[in-house]
Amino acid sequence: MAKDITSRKENYSQWYNDIVIKAGLAENSAVRGCMVIKPYGFAIWEKMQAALDKLFKDTGHYNAYFPLFIPKSFFSKEASHVKGFAKECAVVTHYRLKNDPENKGVIVDEDAKLEEELIIRPTSETIIWNTYKDWVQSYRDLPILLNQWVNVVRWEMRTRLFLRTTEFLWQEGHTAHATREEAEEETFKMLGVYANFAENWLAMPVVKGSKTDSEKFAGALETYAIEALMQDGKALQSGTSHFLGQNFAKAFDVKFLNREGKLNYVWATSWGISTRLMGALVMAHADDNGLIIPPKLAPVQVVIIPIYKTKEEFDKIIKVAKKIKAKIIKRQIFGNKISVEFDDRDTYKPGWKFAYYELKGHPIRIAIGPRDLKNGTVEIVRRDTLEKMTCSQENIEETVKKLLNEIQENIFAKALNNKKANTYKVDNYEEFKKLIKERGGFIYAHWDGTTETELKIKEETKATIRCIPFDEDFEEGKCMVTGKPSKKRVLFAIAY
Amino acid sequence: MAKDITSRKENYSQWYNDIVIKAGLAENSAVRGCMVIKPYGFAIWEKMQAALDKLFKDTGHYNAYFPLFIPKSFFSKEASHVKGFAKECAVVTHYRLKNDPENKGVIVDEDAKLEEELIIRPTSETIIWNTYKDWVQSYRDLPILLNQWVNVVRWEMRTRLFLRTTEFLWQEGHTAHATREEAEEETFKMLGVYANFAENWLAMPVVKGSKTDSEKFAGALETYAIEALMQDGKALQSGTSHFLGQNFAKAFDVKFLNREGKLNYVWATSWGISTRLMGALVMAHADDNGLIIPPKLAPVQVVIIPIYKTKEEFDKIIKVAKKIKAKIIKRQIFGNKISVEFDDRDTYKPGWKFAYYELKGHPIRIAIGPRDLKNGTVEIVRRDTLEKMTCSQENIEETVKKLLNEIQENIFAKALNNKKANTYKVDNYEEFKKLIKERGGFIYAHWDGTTETELKIKEETKATIRCIPFDEDFEEGKCMVTGKPSKKRVLFAIAY
Repeated sequence: MAKDITSRKENYSQWYNDIVIKAGLAENSAVRGCMVIKPYGFAIWEKMQAALDKLFKDTGHYNAYFPLFIPKSFFSKEASHVKGFAKECAVVTHYRLKNDPENKGVIVDEDAKLEEELIIRPTSETIIWNTYKDWVQSYRDLPILLNQWVNVVRWEMRTRLFLRTTEFLWQEGHTAHATREEAEEETFKMLGVYANFAENWLAMPVVKGSKTDSEKFAGALETYAIEALMQDGKALQSGTSHFLGQNFAKAFDVKFLNREGKLNYVWATSWGISTRLMGALVMAHADDNGLIIPPKLAPVQVVIIPIYKTKEEFDKIIKVAKKIKAKIIKRQIFGNKISVEFDDRDTYKPGWKFAYYELKGHPIRIAIGPRDLKNGTVEIVRRDTLEKMTCSQENIEETVKKLLNEIQENIFAKALNNKKANTYKVDNYEEFKKLIKERGGFIYAHWDGTTETELKIKEETKATIRCIPFDEDFEEGKCMVTGKPSKKRVLFAIAY
Repeated sequence: MAKDITSRKENYSQWYNDIVIKAGLAENSAVRGCMVIKPYGFAIWEKMQAALDKLFKDTGHYNAYFPLFIPKSFFSKEASHVKGFAKECAVVTHYRLKNDPENKGVIVDEDAKLEEELIIRPTSETIIWNTYKDWVQSYRDLPILLNQWVNVVRWEMRTRLFLRTTEFLWQEGHTAHATREEAEEETFKMLGVYANFAENWLAMPVVKGSKTDSEKFAGALETYAIEALMQDGKALQSGTSHFLGQNFAKAFDVKFLNREGKLNYVWATSWGISTRLMGALVMAHADDNGLIIPPKLAPVQVVIIPIYKTKEEFDKIIKVAKKIKAKIIKRQIFGNKISVEFDDRDTYKPGWKFAYYELKGHPIRIAIGPRDLKNGTVEIVRRDTLEKMTCSQENIEETVKKLLNEIQENIFAKALNNKKANTYKVDNYEEFKKLIKERGGFIYAHWDGTTETELKIKEETKATIRCIPFDEDFEEGKCMVTGKPSKKRVLFAIAY
């Protein structure tokens, strides 16, 4: 199998596209900016969904479903929200087509114009808070802890598969609370859930922190995010959790009687991750041979490939392969059975299959040939390192289980090393400019806290403040641009 | 808890609405015809999805995701398809809003008009077959066996929660095959999957059959459906499977090289079920006290309620209740752990809770009071019959498991009895008219096979041919309206 993948060195952006397309994750559709998520890509997304959904439910959340459409007037109710989203909205204006008298096609029926236009949800705060209004009377109705897994639309001008598409899939949590403290706690809790998922499933180290005013969600008092470093030294915002204060409660008049019998506005949070994480999966781990999927997210964790010349050899190998498959499939890992496939297609040669599964990113490949039959062995290749080992067929299920755990950890360790190797502390703006241009990476630097300086840096270097990191120690210093005092370093990077 | 549910006898339609609203399944949203699916309703839908998704995957299907938007021109490519859907389409015409100079709101930005309007998918044959075109070159690329779980929009004029809404959730399978036989086999296979799900999960007996020409899917050669009888004697179409022939392959020019090296059009099927099944769940099983959920679809199968007067009693009961919960939760049923909740809220009285869980439809309710502590017993009430039993705490997990199985079977048996009691054979049109008006039900009658007669019957009685049943024996007869010959009885009913 000739993979024809552009190398990362040659053209990182083309490499990304090649992996997404050739590994069968997604492709562009006939509709501008909208993608088709292909079966293999969707299977990985389903694994992400299942893991996250369990984490949400384990923290007391329930799923629900709110309408795709948002009346235009709802949008205007929260001032900064409409400002943030009005410029990228798909608008439904009519509800009927009719035959075109002039040719065979159909045209919009002007008699079927909506009185009020409907916006396709770019996010659902407004329609949800309009609903919560009827659900909340007293403190006994709180908290409301809901999530929905849905499609949303933001009319992006420049799109890239998974990273930025007009339509994308995501989950959006929307919670309502009686007190500010409880809402703030929820905001941090869900950021923690995202960080846990990113590091322990996606095997991708992240930095947690708060956004500056200019990078906040439209309508939030505070936005917290997890930021990850990609192999090209750019940052990818991988999940956000917003403390919305009482903004939406005030916009939609959602009040409740508290324990003391006083009317008060409800406190809100919202939080989301999207199919963008599929892009993160590629850019954090894949190499020039193809995808590398962390075992916890791999739709198929182990593939078995027979190597044979004659029909007789094949018949013997198939028996052993099936036995091995049966043994492995009975073993549990990460709360599920290990998933194994046996690729016995005779239309492709082993070499082609090896390349194919390298491209697809299956964590473990087991080959069984005539020599293995004699020796009671198999050949195992782990995708993360491409290391080859000969292992006994005895206890193969234990070997595989151990290896899957090891691979999961090693992929994380590799990404962590990459992050460490590309994280810098810089105190001098000239050095900063040079570094960001030549190497990218995460740069911790002092900043004077003003939007003005932030925008100046962005204009001059394309770097933005990814977050004000939680973990960073307070350390007095001077803004690298203005020399004004700073209490803490912030995280700069060029972002996707 | 005062439930205020209208009785079925009094007003069946109002009863349905009361159950949907008061049991917390769904409610109308601020957007005309669109519903909010509430957490409890969505939890049941998730159980349906999980069961169906497994059945789809076990029959070799994969999930994928295709765009929400369909370019208007795609629609016109299959003539009968556009005819069927053009009149109920939500149309996106613009992609931006702007500030209204005259007031504080936003208006559509006329500078951001789309060159070609986009239709919100009412179903996805066109966008999917336009994609398959690039996926299929030779017979080796076939079959394609995909499904997607998505939202769709059909601009209905009269809507009812779950049964007919402008936006609804569904799954749509779209498969591509090398031969007519294989596509036909797939169509029947998936109808079988639906019937299996309807009877063995939803506990709702169905009649399988083919649709007449006037009731076929717009673009199909044959439509097969499962039809169920509701408690009011009306039929509910609960799932459809379409044999699309080569219609969409021709419309989108999807050809493949067959084994003989000849170019041929691909054969297609599509099949779907929707949140309409939530309506079926209510109308097939609920009673005047509330929902009755078959144990296989119940988000919570067992609820435990403590009965006590003093704090001391409560403390003793809570210990026993927790032990019982722990025992039950360890037991597996239907491939999962039995799901149990212990309602220890002190803000509500036992009587209120009994009524509440009756309304919600939890299959088993266990009450534990002071007398039970003495006797080592619990009181069990099964929701389907409201039968009360005193059972030993010993082996309670076995008792519960056995009972859940029994309830699942009994709910089906009850629905089957209802169907049998309301199924008739009629040979005389006057009798037919009287019966359909006074009692409704499933009526098997002879029909001459013409659309003319079918429409006449519909106009005069509102009854439609639900299907030409597979199971019905061939039995020569005469059309009850025209007296012309008929080879087989067909199934009439008034439908939702």
